[in-house]
Amino acid sequence: MCELLGMSANVPTDICFSFAGLLERGGRTGPHKDGWGITFYEGKGCRSFKDPLPSCESEIAKLVKSYPIKSKSVISHIRQANRGGISLENTHPFIREMWGRHWTYAHNGQLSKYKRALKTNMHLPVGNTDSELAFCWILDKVKEKYPQRPKNMLSVFRYIASLAKQLKSFGVFNMLLSDGVYVLAFCTSKLHWITRRAPFGKATLIDSDWIIDFQKETTPNDIVTVVATEPLTQDETWNKMESGSFVLFKEGELVVQT
Amino acid sequence: MCELLGMSANVPTDICFSFAGLLERGGRTGPHKDGWGITFYEGKGCRSFKDPLPSCESEIAKLVKSYPIKSKSVISHIRQANRGGISLENTHPFIREMWGRHWTYAHNGQLSKYKRALKTNMHLPVGNTDSELAFCWILDKVKEKYPQRPKNMLSVFRYIASLAKQLKSFGVFNMLLSDGVYVLAFCTSKLHWITRRAPFGKATLIDSDWIIDFQKETTPNDIVTVVATEPLTQDETWNKMESGSFVLFKEGELVVQT
Repeated sequence: MCELLGMSANVPTDICFSFAGLLERGGRTGPHKDGWGITFYEGKGCRSFKDPLPSCESEIAKLVKSYPIKSKSVISHIRQANRGGISLENTHPFIREMWGRHWTYAHNGQLSKYKRALKTNMHLPVGNTDSELAFCWILDKVKEKYPQRPKNMLSVFRYIASLAKQLKSFGVFNMLLSDGVYVLAFCTSKLHWITRRAPFGKATLIDSDWIIDFQKETTPNDIVTVVATEPLTQDETWNKMESGSFVLFKEGELVVQT
Repeated sequence: MCELLGMSANVPTDICFSFAGLLERGGRTGPHKDGWGITFYEGKGCRSFKDPLPSCESEIAKLVKSYPIKSKSVISHIRQANRGGISLENTHPFIREMWGRHWTYAHNGQLSKYKRALKTNMHLPVGNTDSELAFCWILDKVKEKYPQRPKNMLSVFRYIASLAKQLKSFGVFNMLLSDGVYVLAFCTSKLHWITRRAPFGKATLIDSDWIIDFQKETTPNDIVTVVATEPLTQDETWNKMESGSFVLFKEGELVVQT
């Protein structure tokens, strides 16, 4: 199994604190030693850092941990390989352009007997993971239903969640997906989220002894939501997602929940 | 104008030396202060580093300069903005998936009166540069002509070069493009290349005082080609490309030249 981390915020926010917690699980406090990746949106643009090396040893991960890249939407993943070898092309997040936006996706879980059902045409996987194939299948289905970008993006994300529910029938499918504006989380087995807003308090990472005082790092109007496979802090209450449910965030706020 | 840098090699090779020369031109010895980017292929996978900051000030550029990522195909670009604002989404290289491979592209030059002619459908630009639109137009044309990946990739690159020639009629169009296996360079105004192989010698960067002894960095079978807007070294003979010509490299070797 892998671990997922996502963020949605109403102001560009750095994710160093949460990312540091996740990285510890990449070979030190957790078994996810088969690569890691993170995508930050900045406006319509995005940048990714990826490595097939364990995150706790990666030079690039050290840079990302120490260099506060500020973003309103982030998707991150650390990998414990099951389907597909350990290589850069099999490292999440995966990105494709659709309707003139970059779409970013990461998956935790494992699918079985899916190859015949998940045929794709417009979007083809580069690597050989079940995860990337499922992403290409989702995009093909969305593009078939909506050849042009519709005005109502909520209906698009509801449709994507219904596709995720179909993928769940092939196994474990926990997913984070973003177009840079919205962040969608779909749960099969394990996902948690928390929204932080004023009055901000302190929090301690579970995986290291880093304590943060969010009040010192924020302004009173900041709204920041973090989604993670397991809670990252020990002194806050995280929302546990039900199997088959999804949550959709925009600017840090929950906009759809099932 | 911007500057381009590309590499094709038969063994994974680091580009630190050449990239260091290029970065100096990003705001110090050159005026290209509006961002930079570099894409490294590792097998079918690739990773990009990008920044809308001047390369000579960028923390991420420092990492790339000092951390020897080894690759057989590299595309890099430093930007002096003309069309399109300074932002991450307008920063080269641009990447799209086609036929289950990542295609990477960077452009130097400026096009005029192109918008009506360059309509795209399958691949849409995310930013608002002439460069990204031209890339999307090329991919649309290629995908129209070859819905599936053909066996003969040389014919694909010859077709891409013919499209580049059409783009040249709209202004200055110097281009680097790669699918990870081949590196194509098309010249309108300024591009140079050099192939280094045994017996290797020494070289000195034009833009800094870094001297490298390639013999110490290579094995006798290494073949490494570097393509750049302007020669990067002062004690080697670079091949100057003619306007309208292209060169195609694979594993460091020149495979097509016009």
